[in-house]
Amino acid sequence: MPLPQKVNLAEKLALFSERFQPRIVGSVNDTHVKIAKIEGEFIWHHHEREDEMFLVLRGRLHLRFRDGEVAVDPGELIVVPRGVEHCPYADEETHVMLFEPKSTVNTGNAGGERTYVPKEARDPGLEG
Amino acid sequence: MPLPQKVNLAEKLALFSERFQPRIVGSVNDTHVKIAKIEGEFIWHHHEREDEMFLVLRGRLHLRFRDGEVAVDPGELIVVPRGVEHCPYADEETHVMLFEPKSTVNTGNAGGERTYVPKEARDPGLEG
Repeated sequence: MPLPQKVNLAEKLALFSERFQPRIVGSVNDTHVKIAKIEGEFIWHHHEREDEMFLVLRGRLHLRFRDGEVAVDPGELIVVPRGVEHCPYADEETHVMLFEPKSTVNTGNAGGERTYVPKEARDPGLEG
Repeated sequence: MPLPQKVNLAEKLALFSERFQPRIVGSVNDTHVKIAKIEGEFIWHHHEREDEMFLVLRGRLHLRFRDGEVAVDPGELIVVPRGVEHCPYADEETHVMLFEPKSTVNTGNAGGERTYVPKEARDPGLEG
């Protein structure tokens, strides 16, 4: 059996610059561990059957909800329960780790042009 | 619907000092998000049906496997696949975030006196 490999989040974050396009860095049971860069505003959406966790690594993540807004700083996490509409935004480049079921799509129920099918964070030179 | 609340990991870590006794700080689908303090050596064990993820927040986590050892530093994560025997240890106080199915017990197949049923990380003054 090969030795489990560790993942350095900063190294993985250095491999891409696109905003709101989560990359997969790990798989735990039915869940994907992803990282994403957030800057500017995303779209309002919710996930019908999936809770979603954000852990902030850098910057400040704002989550708008219909009833208010929460600002999440590095070293802080927030779980958005299934069914809860939210709209993420960040004024500056913000890095997050996401923890979501493998079935989760970034735009949830909203779909549309900002939908991104996550792929592994890897050296672009290795992508076919 | 109440606004989702964020969790500050440092604040939660300040609420307990016990080693190898994970506290729950969040719930995402079928998974618990836990934090733990590690210092000294744990016991060899594996989890029959559950992958386990460690994200290191402070210190250095060593994971012994039957075929070698991996040292994990802050900002790094490692997934221990189900069935893989491991023994965590740390030379200094080390803080980790864990992602594991709600069914996971810290000692896995090994059981014994170091088994700890995780509870919420909360102000001791609030515990009944």
